[in-house]
Amino acid sequence: MSAYDTHRVFNQAPPFVDVNLVTLDQPLLDALTANGVDPVQEGLLSFGEAWGAAERFELGRLANENPPKLRTHNARGERADQVEFHPAWHALMAASMEAGLHASTWDRMGESSAAPQAPARNGAGKTGPGKNLPGANSFQGRGHVARSARLSVISGVEAGHVCPLTMTHASLASLAVAPERLSQWLPFVRSRQYDPRFLPFWEKRSVNLGMGMTEKQGGADVRANTTTAAPVQDDEYEITGHKWFMSAPMCDAFLVLAQAPGGLTCFLVPRFRPDGSVNGLRFQRLKDKLGNRSNASSEVEFVAAFGWRLGDEGRGVRTIISMVQYTRLDCVSGSNGLMRMALAQAIHHARHRMAFGRKLVDQPAMTLVLADLALEMEAITALTLRLAASFDAAGSDPAEAAFARVVTPAAKFFVCKTAPGFIYEALECLGGNGYVEEGPMARLYREAPLNAIWEGPGNIMALDVLRAASREADEMVAVAGQLAEEAGGMPGVAEAAKDLGDALRGDNPEWRARFAADRLAGLATAAALRRSAPAAVAEAWARTRLATPRRIYGANDVGHLAPRLLERALPLI
Amino acid sequence: MSAYDTHRVFNQAPPFVDVNLVTLDQPLLDALTANGVDPVQEGLLSFGEAWGAAERFELGRLANENPPKLRTHNARGERADQVEFHPAWHALMAASMEAGLHASTWDRMGESSAAPQAPARNGAGKTGPGKNLPGANSFQGRGHVARSARLSVISGVEAGHVCPLTMTHASLASLAVAPERLSQWLPFVRSRQYDPRFLPFWEKRSVNLGMGMTEKQGGADVRANTTTAAPVQDDEYEITGHKWFMSAPMCDAFLVLAQAPGGLTCFLVPRFRPDGSVNGLRFQRLKDKLGNRSNASSEVEFVAAFGWRLGDEGRGVRTIISMVQYTRLDCVSGSNGLMRMALAQAIHHARHRMAFGRKLVDQPAMTLVLADLALEMEAITALTLRLAASFDAAGSDPAEAAFARVVTPAAKFFVCKTAPGFIYEALECLGGNGYVEEGPMARLYREAPLNAIWEGPGNIMALDVLRAASREADEMVAVAGQLAEEAGGMPGVAEAAKDLGDALRGDNPEWRARFAADRLAGLATAAALRRSAPAAVAEAWARTRLATPRRIYGANDVGHLAPRLLERALPLI
Repeated sequence: MSAYDTHRVFNQAPPFVDVNLVTLDQPLLDALTANGVDPVQEGLLSFGEAWGAAERFELGRLANENPPKLRTHNARGERADQVEFHPAWHALMAASMEAGLHASTWDRMGESSAAPQAPARNGAGKTGPGKNLPGANSFQGRGHVARSARLSVISGVEAGHVCPLTMTHASLASLAVAPERLSQWLPFVRSRQYDPRFLPFWEKRSVNLGMGMTEKQGGADVRANTTTAAPVQDDEYEITGHKWFMSAPMCDAFLVLAQAPGGLTCFLVPRFRPDGSVNGLRFQRLKDKLGNRSNASSEVEFVAAFGWRLGDEGRGVRTIISMVQYTRLDCVSGSNGLMRMALAQAIHHARHRMAFGRKLVDQPAMTLVLADLALEMEAITALTLRLAASFDAAGSDPAEAAFARVVTPAAKFFVCKTAPGFIYEALECLGGNGYVEEGPMARLYREAPLNAIWEGPGNIMALDVLRAASREADEMVAVAGQLAEEAGGMPGVAEAAKDLGDALRGDNPEWRARFAADRLAGLATAAALRRSAPAAVAEAWARTRLATPRRIYGANDVGHLAPRLLERALPLI
Repeated sequence: MSAYDTHRVFNQAPPFVDVNLVTLDQPLLDALTANGVDPVQEGLLSFGEAWGAAERFELGRLANENPPKLRTHNARGERADQVEFHPAWHALMAASMEAGLHASTWDRMGESSAAPQAPARNGAGKTGPGKNLPGANSFQGRGHVARSARLSVISGVEAGHVCPLTMTHASLASLAVAPERLSQWLPFVRSRQYDPRFLPFWEKRSVNLGMGMTEKQGGADVRANTTTAAPVQDDEYEITGHKWFMSAPMCDAFLVLAQAPGGLTCFLVPRFRPDGSVNGLRFQRLKDKLGNRSNASSEVEFVAAFGWRLGDEGRGVRTIISMVQYTRLDCVSGSNGLMRMALAQAIHHARHRMAFGRKLVDQPAMTLVLADLALEMEAITALTLRLAASFDAAGSDPAEAAFARVVTPAAKFFVCKTAPGFIYEALECLGGNGYVEEGPMARLYREAPLNAIWEGPGNIMALDVLRAASREADEMVAVAGQLAEEAGGMPGVAEAAKDLGDALRGDNPEWRARFAADRLAGLATAAALRRSAPAAVAEAWARTRLATPRRIYGANDVGHLAPRLLERALPLI
């Protein structure tokens, strides 16, 4: 032993790699089956294996340790406005696009004139944007459940590259209001061959779509936008102004909100003008984000940028609303994936690490923390896939459309808000090793707040629940009644249902907006657990979250279920 | 307007700087007064002004954007083992040491033979380490409350540099077991003139002390340490092995645990040997930490390093335990400070930002979130200073010594565990601006998990509560009874007291360790609020945290108190 090697390293957990991220996740398998997806038939087992490979985790690490660089100008001093990514980013994008995560649920769009049917603000196919197209109601399929599961899996491995995937996927719902634009872009969007080259879309094998909504002075209040759009001819406009947080700036086109003469309007702004010249997007800088570092987010100035109008002038919010439900579902799936990975890492660590003469996992205080986290994860997984199933069925079942409309904001509120505290607790299970960037937890923790913020933060979600209760009162009553019935008899369910009704009916409901969202999410979660989880698991969650909630993981009395919960969460191989 | 300035920036909150961080914090002022400290007399107002200056915030930013660098070797290829800090770090250290944060509570140590009296594991002055010294019980003074307030304030501005301050402060409690070592080092520790030079301690104006406890294979289980200490002569040993997470490696000496022939023993390991040569500490690398980035934490190999034994062989844990209560109090104060800063930033932002035609702070959903966070902050501030007061009184009042012994682990459990979720929620109040490193929130969020981990993570704290209940059963019963009485009549208090008793008396209490810690902390918090906060605030906290807890901020019914809570948290100037 030399002076450089004074000690032997032992009792450190091996890396959690070369694992199947689907087969090791019993709650996920159960929720898939309960929501109509056969994991084998859907190819999810091979997907879980591919994304659990050591090499895939390594791509995630590399993409985050080598974040994108903005090249504002080229060597000659001309504007360049390009962002350079590490090869690991491109490899991840290629893998996810090959799996269709950017567009798979729209695979049948256009067939027999089917168009995407947003389970949007207006209930089941009443006046949704897809309604402008023939056969809007014919969109069906079970793609959302399987896609949600896939999105969760990849989010746990590398969350940053999910951003362009989810934006591309959701944008089609808005693009559908402009059939000409849809038919022009759809073939490129649907392609599964990732193509990062900076070229006009018609010269590429595939494209990605992004979004530019929020401005410095407005944030979520997009009606305060000051960016202007001057009509040129037909649906062509010239856009001048800025966006404050435009992610994935190397997308091939962006949905952008700007003030046209007739009011706030949605536009499709491509990186190249139809004449092949570079469009007037000037990236000022990239955001130095807390997490999501593999992904670029930019501050951008529009200098007489070319854009196509999508939908009528003054209907901008309505046009983008049709995609927002999809991105919000993705936020739920993404946060689900972050928590799932944090839990798996924590259990894995505790099974391999000895302390005070026993394995960590066998120390009762630790057992209970892990079991309590696993119980929460059961609930979140059940809710996530149940919500995705409602998107699948929304086109044909008004009750499911109402569910999607009403539960989406409540689920985003609850699931995305749960992630930071959940991941922190899992991080602590690794002690000091949880607090270093070399390990798996720091990145998950830094990522955690983001899904709760973009696509509308918690208060926007809570107010959206109120809006549904006010504008679609019948649907809200029906959904709440259905949830209370499905979860009926479990501890705290009746009280939660009563609380929800009281909160929505009371004076000044805005004061109770978060309370209402929390109660609605609780009901939906209990019902989802009853659908897909063992009865004892569903009962334990309802008892410890609805009936007698505790504010700290591991303070709940779930010791009797601990072996079962841990085995379901991560089987001993 | 040029093509580079296409829009006007407005509706962004101004920076929260040039504010008095003490006078703007009514709950802090109340808790100081209730715990016997006059903020004016103690110089806390000028302290709050100094640390709220724009220049001080700027130092915090610079110290974190320019983290320390390890120089393993010098230009000639010889070992250097030095860490270089940015001038901002040194400026912060100088300011905090001038304020005495590294040693102020020991100012009277040595006067009339007084020595630090640890409110340690053994109740009031029974057999504490200080007992070996004459006049151990004569340590008194009110220094801990004011110091806790100061530590909170600086932690909100820059948390990284608190690490060497708190280690230096606490180390004296362990150094006291070796009077010769104490008298040798005390004058240098007490000096308020920061001196970062890499020199033997006797050539410096002042010194800092660090700690090296945990190893790769052991973590919190320090009895698993493999580092060895071979006796040389008298109290001198040669230490060989490693530490896995040794923070502030530029300290002048470290308390280190190693296996001597007689078992695990505590040593003081200086950076320079008594002959003036550089001691055998070889820094392998710095930790790439999630937060706390201004501070260096190292992996270190000890190569026949010189060390003085502190206390008897085999008594290492007992020797360091006497300082652990102090560092745990500092963790509580530090987390208090992080949350306080996050809350102030969130309220400040919401008062300056318009959305949907109203100020954010006047949107009911946001009002309620901020008020709910402010209510939690009232509770945490009350508990923190109440705990500090027990340290002051421990030397003369057995009941207070029991309080310090029993409540310290419960308070660290609760307060430090509350920080990540609390700060996340405050971060979200700023929307996307909360998620970028340029703003104030990202750093606070990254810092948040650390205090919960070091000095013993949550499960260690919970088990420590059990240990107190088992070894000092009378003290635990007395403290719990006192808390239930002080908080008596408030919602949920009787149930919490009963829960605590049941959990501690039941079979297999380890299964209920976190539950017990949570209940004890809840009782202590309710009692502390009754001591220092308005009755309505105390009642609201007990009702919404003990009686009917919710898991999400803003879901509690505290709207009626909102104006009062926000005005107390941050007065409108």
